[in-house]
Amino acid sequence: MEHFQQVEPFDYVIFGATGDLTMRKLLPALYNRMRVGQIPDEARIIGTARTELNREQYLERARDALQRFLPADIYNPGLTDRFLGQLDYVTLDATQSGTDWNDLSSLLAEAPPERIRVYYFATAPQLYASICENLHSHDLITPQSRVVLEKPIGTDMATATVINDGVGHYFPESQIYRIDHYLGKETVQNIIALRFANPLLNAAWTKDFIESVQITAAETVGVEGRASYYDTSGALRDMIQNHLLQVLCLVAMEAPDTLEASKVRNAKLAVLNALRPIPEDRVAQETVRGQYTAGVVNGENVPGYLEELGQPSNTETYAAVRVWVDTPRWKDVPFYIRTAKRSAKKVSEVVINFRPAATAMFGSTPASNRIVVRVQPNEGVELHLNVKNPALDVFSLHTADLDASIRMEGGQPFPDSYERLLIDAVRGNPVLFIRRDEVEAAWRWAEPVLDAWAQNKAPMQTYSAGSYGPQQANTLLADQGDKWHEDME
Amino acid sequence: MEHFQQVEPFDYVIFGATGDLTMRKLLPALYNRMRVGQIPDEARIIGTARTELNREQYLERARDALQRFLPADIYNPGLTDRFLGQLDYVTLDATQSGTDWNDLSSLLAEAPPERIRVYYFATAPQLYASICENLHSHDLITPQSRVVLEKPIGTDMATATVINDGVGHYFPESQIYRIDHYLGKETVQNIIALRFANPLLNAAWTKDFIESVQITAAETVGVEGRASYYDTSGALRDMIQNHLLQVLCLVAMEAPDTLEASKVRNAKLAVLNALRPIPEDRVAQETVRGQYTAGVVNGENVPGYLEELGQPSNTETYAAVRVWVDTPRWKDVPFYIRTAKRSAKKVSEVVINFRPAATAMFGSTPASNRIVVRVQPNEGVELHLNVKNPALDVFSLHTADLDASIRMEGGQPFPDSYERLLIDAVRGNPVLFIRRDEVEAAWRWAEPVLDAWAQNKAPMQTYSAGSYGPQQANTLLADQGDKWHEDME
Repeated sequence: MEHFQQVEPFDYVIFGATGDLTMRKLLPALYNRMRVGQIPDEARIIGTARTELNREQYLERARDALQRFLPADIYNPGLTDRFLGQLDYVTLDATQSGTDWNDLSSLLAEAPPERIRVYYFATAPQLYASICENLHSHDLITPQSRVVLEKPIGTDMATATVINDGVGHYFPESQIYRIDHYLGKETVQNIIALRFANPLLNAAWTKDFIESVQITAAETVGVEGRASYYDTSGALRDMIQNHLLQVLCLVAMEAPDTLEASKVRNAKLAVLNALRPIPEDRVAQETVRGQYTAGVVNGENVPGYLEELGQPSNTETYAAVRVWVDTPRWKDVPFYIRTAKRSAKKVSEVVINFRPAATAMFGSTPASNRIVVRVQPNEGVELHLNVKNPALDVFSLHTADLDASIRMEGGQPFPDSYERLLIDAVRGNPVLFIRRDEVEAAWRWAEPVLDAWAQNKAPMQTYSAGSYGPQQANTLLADQGDKWHEDME
Repeated sequence: MEHFQQVEPFDYVIFGATGDLTMRKLLPALYNRMRVGQIPDEARIIGTARTELNREQYLERARDALQRFLPADIYNPGLTDRFLGQLDYVTLDATQSGTDWNDLSSLLAEAPPERIRVYYFATAPQLYASICENLHSHDLITPQSRVVLEKPIGTDMATATVINDGVGHYFPESQIYRIDHYLGKETVQNIIALRFANPLLNAAWTKDFIESVQITAAETVGVEGRASYYDTSGALRDMIQNHLLQVLCLVAMEAPDTLEASKVRNAKLAVLNALRPIPEDRVAQETVRGQYTAGVVNGENVPGYLEELGQPSNTETYAAVRVWVDTPRWKDVPFYIRTAKRSAKKVSEVVINFRPAATAMFGSTPASNRIVVRVQPNEGVELHLNVKNPALDVFSLHTADLDASIRMEGGQPFPDSYERLLIDAVRGNPVLFIRRDEVEAAWRWAEPVLDAWAQNKAPMQTYSAGSYGPQQANTLLADQGDKWHEDME
């Protein structure tokens, strides 16, 4: 099977090319796409940053990064040479309209004007607008240009609007690619296949059969060196407003007619618009926020968040929210979303809990059916079904876990989600990127919660590093008679 | 977990105690139940047959049989001694009302009158009535007596009625246990659990989602030494009228309120009564019958049926029938039932084929969902679901097989289905036995087919030993655009 189709020649211009994201993710992702033969010889990758480096110096940094961040069996010196041969660097303060744009301009002018251009903004979001302005004033925005925006798109509706307006002033929405790397994950995309390619599952994908949904993204890592940055964001902004709401959209959306970007995004937007607003006076009932205190993670003693930060803080490292999707399909079905740092386990998953069988046939009620979509680790899908206990005189049941691990042929690791997304931008396929109205609908829902938290309308809870989160998160579910996945038998 | 509950003391009287069934199945089954501690010390097993043997001689035959037919790791000389200590033998021509009944009568009289008695008829069915008459005339039918009838219950409605009337004259229906060893099979019973304990599957268990059902029981063995017996029966009588229709009932029945015998049997009876009659002039379109010719099975040359039999014959060793269940749930859903001797593979299974997804979302139509209930070998349940092909730029699908093998703890083999059924008769639980009205409803459906075949209204096809059956069986399915399971991709 042909896994990859070669794309048209392109110029990938990365702003923030000396930064961590570029070194860790973007260059290795592009390297891997070259490795599988997807990148044409004419394609160029042009790093830009303020750091004064000549090309050779940048290539050296890039080589170091590839060697460090690629698995040893993937890194190949010969291929790296070829990759570096297509890599260039321009020293540039992209927020300043100075003469140093000439280097970039003349470099880009070497290619035919219809060459696909991707401007990848791996910088602080507050710089996006001025970079766009400069791209415009130096006449670098061609019809074949796209701009890829890294998260966060703002920290609330107002700042998101500033960013979106700033970029939107120079790029039409169709040329703006807002990245959400969760959508690049195999099992997240698999939710679409599971639901809509399987009538057997689709038949039960409604409130009539589904009792609740849990979406979890938990990490064992803390904020470590990034505490002061993290403190400006927090769990809800960092994970829920974007990634986990996007996952929720895929679980909850109505079937799009096709997988065309506009259809899928319209379907997701309809979910975001149907999220029941949480009024200020309900925030304490519908949400739980917390900060980790010192504890033990993977057998190691780790400090608490405030100790790492070195000052008091009102920023959550844990958030759990009960979400209601006000569409006919999901009437009265709670969606529980949570994210945690310093959790007991690293796990990203979606758990679909089905209603119990409405039969007295088996004496006691059979265990409820469950589907678990494991986003990471061990990508896969589990179905929990009841089967008969073998060889008993009395008919009784136990739960069998049917498991479809989603693996690459030969058991290779999955491509990083950036690989798919970077090339989608070249191919001009925005289906896995976030449209402006989605970002805004997500902020519209999230902002009242953030505001209420800022006003301490819901108490800041604590949880020990290495636990599953504050005790109050259990109470949130117990209201409906539910339990978190790890507490299910 | 307590797998087995000890039952009340009982006397098991086996008629035909020197026969193959007793030696191969019944004694090993009872031994195994003693092994797991289910058989009380006071329980007795009393063999009877015409063969003049004293107790010691019979015990010697029994010991030989246990040694031969039990797996080596199960056979245990000490336990065998205990088992034989509870075994006795009475020489008796049970069809003759002579003085030799006194031995059996006095043996039985040693136990209290309320002792559970099971009369197991492992004889030719035409003897059942006269055995019953003699049991009655010797006053051996107590309120705690049950009679277990082996198949076949007749070869058509008339002969079934003779047998049922003959037995029913002396035993009320509630004391009559017609055995169908398919119902003793774990995965056959599991159909009940799968359907009714899993709302996720139950939601789609209707004509709206299911396109067709296949029920197959194929053997690689031929008739070998049993040709002259088999020639009086044939595939439809031997397998379809009883076993496979019972399996069909479990797949198609409406949910019984409870697993009580009367509820389950009523639900099955409703299916049998809803089988669409096949009029004589449709038999050629709705059925395929065939005889195997010489061929190769498992790499070995084997003769054809007629060669084994040594004379011409109108008896089928293969039968396939398209069955329609005229209930609202199954409107226009074909059930394909087939059975074969000298087939390419030994397999008993139920295949539920779901309708394709009604979506254009994925470009081409996703593969249809499928559930395969493997009755034997490798008992288990497979779900065929579509998942996304990993790491492709274009969203495409492949089928993942989710598998729940149904195994004993520690991987031991399942108890033989006779074990369960023999003890159910002691416990007075008839849920896995066939009620008279079920037998009759099954004959009512089968008889017109047999009649039409007897009149050669459908041609006798041939198939090579080691093939999947006559070519015409494929045409039977192609009518509806269907394929047999082995021909699905």
